[in-house]
Amino acid sequence: MPRYALKIEYNGAPFSGWQRQKEHPSVQQAVEEALQKLDRSVTGIAAAGRTDTGVHATGQVAHVDMAATWEPFRLAEALIYHLKPNPVAIVNAAEVDEEFHARFSAIERRYLFRLISRRAPMTFDKGTVWHVRHELDADAMQEGANFLLGRHDFTTFRSTICQAPSPLRTLDELRVERIELQDATEFRFHVRARAFLHNQVRSFVGTLERVGAGSWQPEDVAAALEAKDRAACGPVCPPHGLYLAEVKYPQDPFKGMRGGEPIDHEGTEA
Amino acid sequence: MPRYALKIEYNGAPFSGWQRQKEHPSVQQAVEEALQKLDRSVTGIAAAGRTDTGVHATGQVAHVDMAATWEPFRLAEALIYHLKPNPVAIVNAAEVDEEFHARFSAIERRYLFRLISRRAPMTFDKGTVWHVRHELDADAMQEGANFLLGRHDFTTFRSTICQAPSPLRTLDELRVERIELQDATEFRFHVRARAFLHNQVRSFVGTLERVGAGSWQPEDVAAALEAKDRAACGPVCPPHGLYLAEVKYPQDPFKGMRGGEPIDHEGTEA
Repeated sequence: MPRYALKIEYNGAPFSGWQRQKEHPSVQQAVEEALQKLDRSVTGIAAAGRTDTGVHATGQVAHVDMAATWEPFRLAEALIYHLKPNPVAIVNAAEVDEEFHARFSAIERRYLFRLISRRAPMTFDKGTVWHVRHELDADAMQEGANFLLGRHDFTTFRSTICQAPSPLRTLDELRVERIELQDATEFRFHVRARAFLHNQVRSFVGTLERVGAGSWQPEDVAAALEAKDRAACGPVCPPHGLYLAEVKYPQDPFKGMRGGEPIDHEGTEA
Repeated sequence: MPRYALKIEYNGAPFSGWQRQKEHPSVQQAVEEALQKLDRSVTGIAAAGRTDTGVHATGQVAHVDMAATWEPFRLAEALIYHLKPNPVAIVNAAEVDEEFHARFSAIERRYLFRLISRRAPMTFDKGTVWHVRHELDADAMQEGANFLLGRHDFTTFRSTICQAPSPLRTLDELRVERIELQDATEFRFHVRARAFLHNQVRSFVGTLERVGAGSWQPEDVAAALEAKDRAACGPVCPPHGLYLAEVKYPQDPFKGMRGGEPIDHEGTEA
């Protein structure tokens, strides 16, 4: 059976996360139902990251086995059609080897967290950024973030219901970017690792926000990490600023492709 | 009576434009009703640009005369409170001279038009960008745009119901910016003039999109301009990609202010 990789973008607001559940709508269910409209033999799909309720994605990757051979472009177009009106878009598609597994072949995951600081409420980005009304100190947040880089026991920064057998993870990047907007300041947290624990990014950002606001000192982050105690974590921040932005594989299945079609180096269709 | 300038951001989707109307909700009505909760003597406000139905703003400017003196910061906060849950935000406020008039003192208006090209529908930017499914040639659009720069009779590019006494305007900038996104291409049209005619920006963008798609040649834009005939215009594009981004005055009333408060040069509150 031919196997296809799908790159999926979604607004997480109406979903109880990626993973299929009996009682609540999930992104996985929406994508699987669209696939089953094309091919009744599809039983289920595997994704690189099981995003939580309300978390968004711009670069989720899933794979699926189909009974018949599809042009990747046609597959993407057909899924786009059947996914309407869900805020879920197939932004790329490619045929892959049978060894490719969206979750187990992944060698890196990148998350983006968007936070906007200004007095007035959001008009355009409501539900897609975390809005705070106070100023934040990006340098202090970066100083606190630097204590988290590298290989650590992240017990403090994972949910008590996290099912990973080990709390050890290696954090490769936690970069705080400050962007001056017309009448606001945006803070972007770029977070990169091979794999993450449950609620790890939101535990990081919620804690660093306290550092940025001045109620924690940067070195308090080091103390929290060393405590290896969930109770030492800052408040977990809301999900709606979080995006699964990119998943990396030893070979990029989507290289040189857009929407399932080859592109030339200038970005126009070949 | 003290006079205040307000910088207003709004999502135009739920409104029949800026201007107050009897039967339909308008941004002006929303702001005036919030003002009247603070000061019953307020009769009406004047704005720099009367945006159309569905058009957004990030930098609309209006002025209002109040019976009492307000700290600009307090005035902004009180209006933010009373404007909920409308997608209208007061992003800045300042006290101004009685000579200041939001409309007649303005010396320049800047519009931004956002267009995204990709196969899949929008998930995050639905209603805030114009989405097209085909590729566009930015260089060809810029070439066409350049014919429009300078002082011209813009009869071709104004609505037949435009009430301006003269079709002559001076276009100072029409720059096409191409931005490669993760799985899409965004085209931003930056348009700048002292004043605009009704539907002028949307007539420009709708025509240039035809150039970008290849169905018009760049020099066809020059021929359309020279025709001085509304029938020679390309299709007027939809309103929901358009933003009134900035209004300039001889002296910026909001200089060094954010949300009605002074800011230091690093953007933190003084």
